[in-house]
Amino acid sequence: MKACGVIVEYNPFHNGHRYHLQKAREASKADCIIAIMSGSFLQRGEPAIIDKWHRAEAALNNGADLILELPYLYAVEHSDHFSHGAVSALSEMNAEAICFGSEHGSIEAFLEAYNHMQENKATFDETVQQHLKKGLSFPEASRLGYDAIQLPDNSIDLSQPNNILGYSYVKAIQSYNPTITPLTIQRSQSQYHDPVIEGAIASATSIRNEIKQSGSLTDSVQQALPKETVEKLEQYKAKTGVWHEWEQYFDLLDYKIMTSTEHELRLIHGVDEGLEYRLKRMMKHSTSFESFMKALKTKRYTWTRLQRTLVHILTGLKKEEAQTLLREDKPGYVRVLGMNETGRFYLNEQKKKIDVPLVTQPQKFQHPMLALEEKASISYYSILGRDERKERIQREYGPPVIV
Amino acid sequence: MKACGVIVEYNPFHNGHRYHLQKAREASKADCIIAIMSGSFLQRGEPAIIDKWHRAEAALNNGADLILELPYLYAVEHSDHFSHGAVSALSEMNAEAICFGSEHGSIEAFLEAYNHMQENKATFDETVQQHLKKGLSFPEASRLGYDAIQLPDNSIDLSQPNNILGYSYVKAIQSYNPTITPLTIQRSQSQYHDPVIEGAIASATSIRNEIKQSGSLTDSVQQALPKETVEKLEQYKAKTGVWHEWEQYFDLLDYKIMTSTEHELRLIHGVDEGLEYRLKRMMKHSTSFESFMKALKTKRYTWTRLQRTLVHILTGLKKEEAQTLLREDKPGYVRVLGMNETGRFYLNEQKKKIDVPLVTQPQKFQHPMLALEEKASISYYSILGRDERKERIQREYGPPVIV
Repeated sequence: MKACGVIVEYNPFHNGHRYHLQKAREASKADCIIAIMSGSFLQRGEPAIIDKWHRAEAALNNGADLILELPYLYAVEHSDHFSHGAVSALSEMNAEAICFGSEHGSIEAFLEAYNHMQENKATFDETVQQHLKKGLSFPEASRLGYDAIQLPDNSIDLSQPNNILGYSYVKAIQSYNPTITPLTIQRSQSQYHDPVIEGAIASATSIRNEIKQSGSLTDSVQQALPKETVEKLEQYKAKTGVWHEWEQYFDLLDYKIMTSTEHELRLIHGVDEGLEYRLKRMMKHSTSFESFMKALKTKRYTWTRLQRTLVHILTGLKKEEAQTLLREDKPGYVRVLGMNETGRFYLNEQKKKIDVPLVTQPQKFQHPMLALEEKASISYYSILGRDERKERIQREYGPPVIV
Repeated sequence: MKACGVIVEYNPFHNGHRYHLQKAREASKADCIIAIMSGSFLQRGEPAIIDKWHRAEAALNNGADLILELPYLYAVEHSDHFSHGAVSALSEMNAEAICFGSEHGSIEAFLEAYNHMQENKATFDETVQQHLKKGLSFPEASRLGYDAIQLPDNSIDLSQPNNILGYSYVKAIQSYNPTITPLTIQRSQSQYHDPVIEGAIASATSIRNEIKQSGSLTDSVQQALPKETVEKLEQYKAKTGVWHEWEQYFDLLDYKIMTSTEHELRLIHGVDEGLEYRLKRMMKHSTSFESFMKALKTKRYTWTRLQRTLVHILTGLKKEEAQTLLREDKPGYVRVLGMNETGRFYLNEQKKKIDVPLVTQPQKFQHPMLALEEKASISYYSILGRDERKERIQREYGPPVIV
């Protein structure tokens, strides 16, 4: 059997994701689509709107055959680590291709950009370092780096978020396993940053915005989602009473920051350059997550980077541990969140050809990355009522979803 | 001016406390009664029902002239450290006498017991150590120690809680400053452990029990309290919505224990003898503080010792820090929580004769014990709503209550 990997968050799973899965199957001619999905917290440093199990189930009903969990360590990271974690896991699972959505839509342009970059790496790095020293954020410094090395005409626009991610997937494939075929599907009908829903294909951001503002699944939200996602969102809310968002974690974050010393905060992954003082100073008078973030924000820190750091404060991820684990060549295991019959066949067929431990019963397996996942789950569910919280955390040790 | 010290928690201030203050004034013939009071958390490892400010004000209206804060470090400790902290602070404030309530009521008996103990210390210590090794709790081992050295007839009964405390005050006075006169007032009308209120003099335990069970200030509660305490309890609840109790901290404790590694828990003051494993194992399925405590309890750990340890988990007090600070000869400062005119006169008169820093503006003073106090406050108020929480924490840096 031939497998194609996709790298996803499904926050929540929408019609655009279903389209991507269809196109990935067509383009790769794969028998099995493996989605490696972030768990409780996402790349932009936010809690997922509903838990991984409900999101996985919606995806399995709409074109994915096997869902793996991208470990927290990689999931809440900038694009290079994120991509490395996802690509190496898919490679270990013997995916022959990886297919991603991008604004550009032509894989040649990504490969050209990659090659051009390899040739001009010194100039790029120097420019980025220069601008970082001046106090610019990493994305801004990178943009100026790309300007400096003059990517060929009709190359990809590396200021577009999905192009950036796609580029880093290509980079990770080239460096980890160049035998994997990179494929890209053009995202046409919606832009990543679109604030409002228009039609049946909408960005996850616009869908979450509307859910947050209206507090419900309006008609326009529902038209952008497969019926299984609507069901899962409703089920999760009925069970737990919430759709997760940062604001609900504010009290806990406040307690955690204010009872930690500056020294303790400095040990946390992402707390650099004196951020520990700023965190305590700004939290002292903040009464909401929104106002805290606004007070915290400076030119140097992107919103995303700050949010990721705040997630690490909640979960207690230490610099030393993160740095040690991120230096590893690949994830220490691959955890299966769910599968359909095709996924199960693929696993059975490949089992003996997969070198990393394949985890379907997490209580029987130990690894520092899995211990981090547990802390992330406990933090993620901490806002729920007592019984529901214990039940959800217990579920984390349970078997994959079978569809 | 002559001052007499009293060592108190006022949780809440009741008619028995008022009686104690009157009798202390009579017995000591002092001009000024200085009460050193625990702040946010108490010796039995519980949050105070209302904050220190409201409790201080009620006491100042009912016989106390000056209220000092017993630092968290000593307040949430077994009787030896508790007494040492309180007695040394009162000594530094030049109190000439210390007056405590006891079941026995005769100071001679306490002094006799102390002398007898000095003479038989080796036997006592050996007996206690033997029984601790067998897995008995410290109070049980101590009781057997007292049996072994055969206190004189008509001596104090050291199985009575206020006798134990009184005995440790006398011990602390003798070792820190024997020129202080110990005085005791007999507690007659209520026993410390009395579960129900009877009449106008009732134990704080029985008052809290009734408040907790009824959720209100019933007639029998009110008859055991001065009107100012009733007012302060009502005001605090109207402002914050709560009377503090452990159960309200359960979610936070759960998060803290379950996101800490065993190694991190072992660093906390009081987490000894493998308790870190037990904490995590028992918390996994507990859905209330009550059930968690019941699951945690063994012969070796008293309920009180466990509760104190759980407070230290909330506030993050580390073994190393606690041990270092507890080795100090006396508190690093004395903080004034409130005063009336007599208290103010006393402070003015004594100011130059007091060697330890006298703190009335905590934001202008730094000391590790005060940093601990801040963590205790933040933990204590963490269960309140956002605005009220920030306001109460801000109040902690403010000036003393003046009555």
